Amino acid sequence: MRSMNLVDSWGQACLVINQSLPYNSFNGLMKINSKNRKILQQSLSYRTFSSVTVSAIATNEKVVMEKEEFNFKVYVAEKAICVNKALDEAIMVKDPPKIHEAMRYSLLAGGKRVRPMLCLAACELVGGNQGNAMAAACAVEMIHTMSLIHDDLPCMDDDDLRRGKPTNHKVYGEDVAVLAGDALLAFAFEYLATATTGVSPSRILVAVAELAKSVGTEGLVAGQVADLACTGNPNVGLEMLEFIHIHKTAALLEASVVIGAILGGGADEEVDKLRRFAQCIGLLFQVVDDILDVTKSSSELGKTAGKDLAVDKTTYPKLLGLEKAKEFAAELNGEAKQQLAAFDSHKAAPLIALADYIANRQN
Amino acid sequence: MRSMNLVDSWGQACLVINQSLPYNSFNGLMKINSKNRKILQQSLSYRTFSSVTVSAIATNEKVVMEKEEFNFKVYVAEKAICVNKALDEAIMVKDPPKIHEAMRYSLLAGGKRVRPMLCLAACELVGGNQGNAMAAACAVEMIHTMSLIHDDLPCMDDDDLRRGKPTNHKVYGEDVAVLAGDALLAFAFEYLATATTGVSPSRILVAVAELAKSVGTEGLVAGQVADLACTGNPNVGLEMLEFIHIHKTAALLEASVVIGAILGGGADEEVDKLRRFAQCIGLLFQVVDDILDVTKSSSELGKTAGKDLAVDKTTYPKLLGLEKAKEFAAELNGEAKQQLAAFDSHKAAPLIALADYIANRQN
Repeated sequence: MRSMNLVDSWGQACLVINQSLPYNSFNGLMKINSKNRKILQQSLSYRTFSSVTVSAIATNEKVVMEKEEFNFKVYVAEKAICVNKALDEAIMVKDPPKIHEAMRYSLLAGGKRVRPMLCLAACELVGGNQGNAMAAACAVEMIHTMSLIHDDLPCMDDDDLRRGKPTNHKVYGEDVAVLAGDALLAFAFEYLATATTGVSPSRILVAVAELAKSVGTEGLVAGQVADLACTGNPNVGLEMLEFIHIHKTAALLEASVVIGAILGGGADEEVDKLRRFAQCIGLLFQVVDDILDVTKSSSELGKTAGKDLAVDKTTYPKLLGLEKAKEFAAELNGEAKQQLAAFDSHKAAPLIALADYIANRQN
Repeated sequence: MRSMNLVDSWGQACLVINQSLPYNSFNGLMKINSKNRKILQQSLSYRTFSSVTVSAIATNEKVVMEKEEFNFKVYVAEKAICVNKALDEAIMVKDPPKIHEAMRYSLLAGGKRVRPMLCLAACELVGGNQGNAMAAACAVEMIHTMSLIHDDLPCMDDDDLRRGKPTNHKVYGEDVAVLAGDALLAFAFEYLATATTGVSPSRILVAVAELAKSVGTEGLVAGQVADLACTGNPNVGLEMLEFIHIHKTAALLEASVVIGAILGGGADEEVDKLRRFAQCIGLLFQVVDDILDVTKSSSELGKTAGKDLAVDKTTYPKLLGLEKAKEFAAELNGEAKQQLAAFDSHKAAPLIALADYIANRQN
């Protein structure tokens, strides 16, 4: 008896079948079970047919395949393995070692890889393959990591704990932490520009511009500047709160999705729909972050909890109350899903599940 | 009597002639002076015919033109005006105002614009026009400015004075200074990707990668990390000193030249020669910086002088003695110019003069 693990992306799954089984065995599979043949044929036609997971066991020439609903846990686990491997290989330790170690310390600290997954899922939804967007998926995670390292600095949010570990400057010193952030920021563009495969230069260039825009004064930096300016001010209104969230959090989530769609070969109207989807889940992400800060402990979050309250920071729970904040989160999730209605529901399953995950996450 | 200012770039100069003089006047010029006709014809053929400046005075149908040697002062003044105008327009003050003001404070603080000029000169040397490389020229200056802002931070070199003015964090605070650097870094890539004109996406993408490489762990960041690690260590050798200089200073100067050549449409062998030219003047730049630190006052430099000595930093004058350091600088300048020998000497005049300027500058 021979077992095959086919839970990797569908492109790879088909490759495993073709490589592992001789032609007769493959034919045998087709003869044994017409339902399975249909599933396999679909998988061959749609490399992003992710709403089905298949477990196959080959016994001599007998293969059993099961159709299941889209399994988000399996999807996330598979994508995280691919992304972590790509990130690990993208930045190796070389001279000077300390800066590379500092970059890797934060980059490989077990983040949830939400942004890379959004990037890959958007790419595959519009017909691209994982290779088209993997460099971009790594790039958005590098940018995200850089923003965390710099935001945690003593002159900014002054945080000691991140993802359950001491923050970068606590381990490597403030000077190296600033430089590790700078290097990650620059390398994100280098990696996107040089390691993207199977995409035209013009599309990669649009992706470079989209990524850059999400970092600067129309993205992360604008959000952090406004956030710092509002800290300690109890009179921050809903409009300013939304400005902060849209820039500090939503901009990079939006870029992750949009870049994936661009690199996957998406048509303009597809990219537009996915942009609006991403804007909704981007704001949703931060609303949930605000909620978690008041409902969870530091150990549950892996970072300092209750910090918003401690510094009298304006948050959605503070402005709207906890229940209304939760309702607003649900509305945003609904709006996000509406944007996906025009796509094939099987193909859109990963993005739908990612939106639900962002809405319902516990840390 | 009508006078024309033709000291702008040659592309613009020709435009002035065509727009200012009726066809007859233009013909008149050709008839009057066959030598002038030749100069003007050359200027029309070679938009980068920068080794000649022309002043033309039209008196009815009579035009007098003079051929002069390449005037570096005029060249630098013209290019600086163009670059400063482009930088001023690239980053306007908008919401949130403080971060844009902080970015502009350092970006428009009267830098010498050596990197943008190298970029433009390399572009024009290989046959490109100023428009092809102006966005890139701004981008390299944004990166340079970002590295100054971050290097001046208290957790790094802790400098209070830069270009004769209080450093960015002294005016805007450390948090905003970190973010202004981040925003300049990201915007450099956005501007290069979106504001470059008349160049194919594939060449722009190569330029993006080249620029990014010059910032991270193969460029500025590597140099600064090694520099910080060596500060206070009196036993730093020549090899490490060169590592620091090549990464901290030469990498971005190299990128400036190479990107200009790529965007100007340079052939591979032209780009290679200009890369080697840039590597020489890059190292030269820092050797001269070391020399100036021990020979000039703070007011002459516009930044804290004698600082290297005060912190017992290893420099070329310290390792080689002042005279040998000056000889080394002269050798590097000679090597740089050798790389330009294959180019038309008229067209190469700006780069030759820029190398001399870097070798002989007084601040």
